[in-house]
Amino acid sequence: MLAPWRSPLSSAIHRNRSKPHSRYFQLATVTTEGYPANRTVVFRGFLELEHYLNTLKIITDARSAKIKDLENQALAEVCWYFTKTREQFRIAGKLKLITATETNLELLQARKTTWHNLSDSARSQFAWPHPAQPAADQSAFEIDPLDPNLPLDNFYLLLLIPQKIDHLQLRSDPQQRCLYTLENNLSWSTEFVNP
Amino acid sequence: MLAPWRSPLSSAIHRNRSKPHSRYFQLATVTTEGYPANRTVVFRGFLELEHYLNTLKIITDARSAKIKDLENQALAEVCWYFTKTREQFRIAGKLKLITATETNLELLQARKTTWHNLSDSARSQFAWPHPAQPAADQSAFEIDPLDPNLPLDNFYLLLLIPQKIDHLQLRSDPQQRCLYTLENNLSWSTEFVNP
Repeated sequence: MLAPWRSPLSSAIHRNRSKPHSRYFQLATVTTEGYPANRTVVFRGFLELEHYLNTLKIITDARSAKIKDLENQALAEVCWYFTKTREQFRIAGKLKLITATETNLELLQARKTTWHNLSDSARSQFAWPHPAQPAADQSAFEIDPLDPNLPLDNFYLLLLIPQKIDHLQLRSDPQQRCLYTLENNLSWSTEFVNP
Repeated sequence: MLAPWRSPLSSAIHRNRSKPHSRYFQLATVTTEGYPANRTVVFRGFLELEHYLNTLKIITDARSAKIKDLENQALAEVCWYFTKTREQFRIAGKLKLITATETNLELLQARKTTWHNLSDSARSQFAWPHPAQPAADQSAFEIDPLDPNLPLDNFYLLLLIPQKIDHLQLRSDPQQRCLYTLENNLSWSTEFVNP
């Protein structure tokens, strides 16, 4: 069943669709040292599987620093601000990595489909030199198009399984704020609170 | 002395000035439970004081959840994405709260000036009902303009003192990424790395 926050989130995505940056959000994790980390990632849609119905898809590179963060602490908070409608969704939840060795066949297929649906240039980035290493020559970034049916091993599908949503609408007068909480991993509660 | 990342950041702020949301960024902290937290806040400019020259100003409410986060762990990472020029600054640093009981007179004055420069509606929010409590009646949000010379006690100036900057430019081909690191609290190193 769709969670009750899916409708306002779908509406925000739809009403901000003229802005390509509305598909980006900021993903916060905690490093192994216990420090906060925060970066912009691209929303790749919801996972359309029965047991993962409200799960957000992100992609990442095995060589990215966030992999260490989530191996240590598999929790994240996404902050998704929609500039046109001036509303924010904070989405706290669990992270789950889907790699080439995933044993759940549906999740393994989701990884393949996500790779397939990327643009050539997005796929090519997984063949670029190692992120955050001293800058390589430009020629190292000139990659021939990769096979859309064969994900590279360092391509990971990253799932965010939401547990708590904080939806703030700045445009309302007064501002509207609503909390959605997953209770006992079963059902969602909804509470209107002060902004 | 201005840090070497101030020039590219100023340039980004200037070139994105037509977008009001370019003054917003996402501030990640760690909760007392060790969970990541992430929310959008407004950039209030740099602190123009000799010993805090590269320090970013934010404002917050004593009743906000982030106060507990930073009392426990006074570190943050800001993720600042500029939609028009398609570049991101990740700014990791220390947080410092300036309250009504601040003993450094220059910082106390900076708190007063920041309050003074807010709009009436921004000041009024500090007299709103307690954030995240069950929603109060609309009438509780109808606040007469507050004295611009008299900050409310729950108005806090929040300083971010940067220690590490990660600047990524998605528009370049290939993308450009530069790391700036404060060494021994003294001087900034600059390193070009792979995106």
